[in-house]
Parts: sequence; C-alpha cells; structure tokens
Amino acid sequence: MPDSAPVNNLLPRLRAIVGDRGLLTDPADTAPYCEDWRRLYRGTTPAVLRPASTAEVAAVVRLCVERGVPIVPQGGNTSMVGGAAVSEDGSQLILSLSRMNKVRGIDTTDMTMEVEAGVVLKAAQLAADEAGCLLPLSISSEGSAQIGGVLATNAGGNNTVRYGNARDLVLGLEVVLPDGQVWNGLRRLHKDNTGYCLRQLFVGSEGTLGIITAAILKLWSRPREVAVALCAVPSEEAALGLFAQCQRRDAAAIQAFEYMSGAGMELVMRHIPGAMMPLPNPAKHYVLVELATPREGADLNTQLEETLGMAMTDGLIDDAVVAESGPQRAAVWKLREEHSEAQKRAGASVKNDISVPVSKVPELIRRARARSP
Amino acid sequence: MPDSAPVNNLLPRLRAIVGDRGLLTDPADTAPYCEDWRRLYRGTTPAVLRPASTAEVAAVVRLCVERGVPIVPQGGNTSMVGGAAVSEDGSQLILSLSRMNKVRGIDTTDMTMEVEAGVVLKAAQLAADEAGCLLPLSISSEGSAQIGGVLATNAGGNNTVRYGNARDLVLGLEVVLPDGQVWNGLRRLHKDNTGYCLRQLFVGSEGTLGIITAAILKLWSRPREVAVALCAVPSEEAALGLFAQCQRRDAAAIQAFEYMSGAGMELVMRHIPGAMMPLPNPAKHYVLVELATPREGADLNTQLEETLGMAMTDGLIDDAVVAESGPQRAAVWKLREEHSEAQKRAGASVKNDISVPVSKVPELIRRARARSP
Repeated sequence: MPDSAPVNNLLPRLRAIVGDRGLLTDPADTAPYCEDWRRLYRGTTPAVLRPASTAEVAAVVRLCVERGVPIVPQGGNTSMVGGAAVSEDGSQLILSLSRMNKVRGIDTTDMTMEVEAGVVLKAAQLAADEAGCLLPLSISSEGSAQIGGVLATNAGGNNTVRYGNARDLVLGLEVVLPDGQVWNGLRRLHKDNTGYCLRQLFVGSEGTLGIITAAILKLWSRPREVAVALCAVPSEEAALGLFAQCQRRDAAAIQAFEYMSGAGMELVMRHIPGAMMPLPNPAKHYVLVELATPREGADLNTQLEETLGMAMTDGLIDDAVVAESGPQRAAVWKLREEHSEAQKRAGASVKNDISVPVSKVPELIRRARARSP
Repeated sequence: MPDSAPVNNLLPRLRAIVGDRGLLTDPADTAPYCEDWRRLYRGTTPAVLRPASTAEVAAVVRLCVERGVPIVPQGGNTSMVGGAAVSEDGSQLILSLSRMNKVRGIDTTDMTMEVEAGVVLKAAQLAADEAGCLLPLSISSEGSAQIGGVLATNAGGNNTVRYGNARDLVLGLEVVLPDGQVWNGLRRLHKDNTGYCLRQLFVGSEGTLGIITAAILKLWSRPREVAVALCAVPSEEAALGLFAQCQRRDAAAIQAFEYMSGAGMELVMRHIPGAMMPLPNPAKHYVLVELATPREGADLNTQLEETLGMAMTDGLIDDAVVAESGPQRAAVWKLREEHSEAQKRAGASVKNDISVPVSKVPELIRRARARSP
C-alpha cells in the first residue's frame, strides 16, 4: 500500500494555492466525492481540491507532478462507469472543477458560449435559453453533470442524432496539460484552419491528456415547434426501418430517436412513481421519436402522424401515440429518462458505452441479450 | 542545389512498386503536376508516382524515407495557395493519388460512404446521389478536386453553414504515416468512444502528418425542395443581420449563405460569358441565400420571400429576387461560383483562407479592403 505521507506533506502548499474554501480534508466533506453515482465504487482521498481558476488548476498540477502525486479530475461525479473514482489506498487527490462554474459569455451572432468546466450542464442550457438559443447537449444527469466531464467523456445524449456528440459541439478548449502548462485553444471559429486540430484530442480523452478548464460551445436556434411520439415496433429491424423512413422524410427535423426494450420499459413502470404508459398493450420494442423545428407555425404533429401512418402501413409500427401537449410529451420522455434510475432501484446492472454502426444495432441488441443472464 | 542523383537511382525501385502505369518521368507527362491551377507556382520533379493501392503508397513512403527523398502528395492539384507545388530544384517526388479512385461502398442505413483518396469530389457526390443520398461538400473545384486533398486541407465550401467543413464530414480515415505504416481508422461510427480521436489530427494537416489514402464520409438525406435568392444589402453588417434573421426563422433550412462584394460581382459580369445579373441596379454588397429541405411539398420559396420581406422592412435588404426555376437558381449560383475564374482572367489576385468569428466578418472585410490596392 502506498505511503500517504507524501500527499499529507503537500497539503499546506496546496492550501496556499487554492485557499481554505478550495481544500476539503474532513472525511465527512470528502466522502461524497469518493463514491460514484451507482454506489459501486468507493475510494478514499486525503483531500478534495476545489480550485477557483485555471491558474489555480495549473499550479496544483505543477506541484503534484513535481511530487508524483496522482490527481483524479472530477466534474459532477455522475459517471456510470466509475470514470471519476479514486482508489481505496488514499494515494490520489481529487480535483473538483465545481467552483469554476462561470458562464463567461454568450455571443448570439457567433452562436457560441464560453463556459468554465464546472458549469453544470443544466445551468449552461438555461443560460443559452435565456439568450434565445439552444445548447442541444442533453443527458439524464444534466442536473449534476458538468461541462468538463461531459467533454472529457464525449457524452452523447438524447439529441445526438441531430446535433452530434459533445465532440461536435466544441469549437474551443482551454486545457491544463500534464506539465501544468495552460493550453489556450479558446477559439470560436466554425472553420478553423490555423493549424493542427488539437481540441479533439482532449475531447473523450477522459482526463488522461489534461484537465479541461473551459470550453467554447456551439449554440443553435431554439426550436419553436416540437412533436413527440411513442411507438411500439415489432422488432429491432423495424426500429431501424422507422429511423430510415424518418430520415428520408425530414432528417433535419429528427431531434431524438430512442430505442427502448420492453424489459427496460417494464423496469420503469415498476420502479418509477408516476410513470405512465400511453399505449394500451405492452410491447417488446419501443421507439421514442421527437421532431423539432424553429419554423414558426410548422405543424409537426401532422407531419409526424403522416410519417408514422406510412410506417404502420409498411409494418414497421404496431401501435403509436403522438403526445398532444407539453405535459404529455414530458410524460413520454420520462419513460426514457428514468431508465437508469429504474435499473438502479431494481438492483445490480451492467453499464456500457458500446458504439456500433447504426446498421448493426439490431445485431448488437440481440447478441447482448443472449449473453445477459 | 541538391543533387538529383539519389532520386534518379531510386526510380527502378519505385517502378517495381508502382508499375509502369504508376510512374511518369517524361517531362511532358509530369508538367501538368508541376504547375498549380493559378499558374503562379512552377516546379520540376524527376517523377510523378501514381500508386494504385494503399500498400503501394506505403511501400513508396518507406523507400523514400529510407533514402531521405521528399514526397509531395497531390490530389486534384486545385489548390489556390500552391498547396501541392513542388520545388524548382527537382529534389522532390510527386505522389498523385489519382489512380486510387474507387468508391469502395455506400451504406444507406449508416448513411456513410467509403472512398479512396483519389476519388474526384464530383464523382463522390454523384455516387451518393445515385444511392439517394447527399454528400454535402461542395466547392467550385469539385470537378477536379479529390477527396484526399479536400480532407488534407479541411476544405469548406458552399454548404459549410449547414453541414460543416470537410472535418465535420469524416467518420473514418486510412492514412499512410511518415514511417510507411498504415493507420487504419476506417470506422463508420457516428459516436466513437473507442480511444483518442486521431482522425481529426490528419484532417487539415496538409499532408504533414501522413498521406490520406481512404475515408469514410457521412451522408445526408437529399433535399427535395430548394429555394435560392440573390439580395442586394446596404452594408456588411446588414448581411450579418440577414444571416441572424434567417437563422432564427429556420436555421436547419439554410443550405448556403454567401456574401459577395460589388467589386467581385463586377469582375464576374465582365469576364464570365453568360453571367446574368437578375437585379436591376448594381449594389456594393450581395448575399446569396439558399434554403433546402427533404420535406416533400415544403413551400420554401414562400418561406424565403417572407423572411426576405421582414428583412427588407428592417432595412437589412435593399432589393432581392427569389429564383423561380432550376435554371434561374443555377444562374444565380453561377455568379458565386465563377468568382475565382473571373479573378484569374482579370489578372493577379491575392488568395487567402482567413477565418474569423462570424461576428467579425464585417470588420475583416473592411480592414482587408483598406489594405488592398
């Protein structure tokens, strides 16, 4: 077991960098940072560092590198796979970005926003919304997840089909490199041919190449019209066929297209209070489709009904319901968003982040199901 | 001046790799590869290598690295900035990708196409179109420019505002590295979290990090409705205001938004036979707007007229015309596409590839104009 003395000797110097508010050492204070959301990983740390600026992050990194003390960067600590977990031996420091939570600015002409890494995703969404724009990244944990972690893990989320992953939303980054240098790549160019594209190396690198301290994100026009349907489909292939049909009809309008298994839906219905199933009969496969557009007065409900009607004729859908109101749309979305919570309440679950070509999704689902107990 | 003997000694071994068809040494054959499109750069080379496969490219690179012979990779040789030019001293070999011109496959479910680097952009567009899809990258030189060069330079083009640059269209790459290794990153995942994102390092690296030999590109649904307008606007700021207004109304429908100066338009009218100006009075600033959607029956002309009407009320437009037919749309587009040709015929011109935030474009134009003779 490593000796924790070298870390403890560092604490006064770390305190000098981050100040009293920036250093947690009481186990009661550090405990929440040492356990993951799923309560599968519990570690221990001599200190949680909460720097308030990029300069403080850089100073911490320089000192820790000099002393060979490992740092685990942590955002909202919402990882499903222990991505921000510390070891049990107390040899690692946690560096939380949560105090770096300023929205530095929004430019509605450039359609960009500059945010610090510790800004909670939901807060960033709200700031964009107040400026009349849309930050399209949306994940179930958005009330806690922070921008830095979202970028370091290249999060996907519900609107990926339209706007891409976190990777596709980033125009610029500020990163503290492993030697404590600050790399300033805070550009807001939609076309940037000023040299090698380094920012994409950091996105998805899970903190291994540096600590993201700030980012410039792309914004979009806010949708004015939205339509949501829940469909029962006969097979995984039918879900894929429905996707292709929606794409051909109006790909630009597809805001979300979420496959859910009957088994997953059952868990939600059993464990989530208030979950309501709008279709009369249980099915083996479900698809949630959301269309959206900033076009004022666009009748998306009719457009969606037409598309689903054609899909039903083609045998791609057994039953479907188009939500009639905002609350109904929210109720349908709740069925999707509460999957993780329902699984957590049901007991142990196997989490994954598997990507396959879209055409291989049916095969992935079938093979994964065959190997699951 | 470097000694060309080492290169000449290599020729038999290079011929053994690429075959007779793959080696041009007659100055009459190599001349077109040694001069750029604008005829500003003229070099000389002992040989143009035209490998027919990735393995041949790799073997050429290994041999040349071993002997310290520089290679200039060349696609369609359409660079405006001498990007594929060889030096005058005959010490450099040209490696043309033009024989690697196979479309390896199109997947309409995954919405991807796999192409070799030497596929001409127009040919790739047509192959996508035949499969009922859209490859949205479109540049004036698309009849000659090749995919490899387009990616190596991160080309932009007319539809960047909607689909992004070349960078945004690439899911996977195959690259021959500087040591002759082949890096196979030919993935077709829209979300790829399988490690560091290396492909974006090569895109825009101008051949300095490796030679792109193949790529997997994203495809989109083909638009079914399209509308094009040419607007005379009172200032650079008005052009920007019009852009913001189009974005707010229906950002997803903006297929192109091109600013043109009155001076540029005059050159086109003077030097391009058949160029027709659909507006009655000359203006200092023009904007071409194109809307497009795959929604069948969408009345985009009316939508565009409404948007332009509002912009006129707001003083953002002096005059505008919406094209009434395919030929009229083509005529408006011709005014934009022939700018380079018109400049070439007018004489010397200064080419650039400057990126600034969208909000700074008016300032860029004014400052550049003030410094131009």
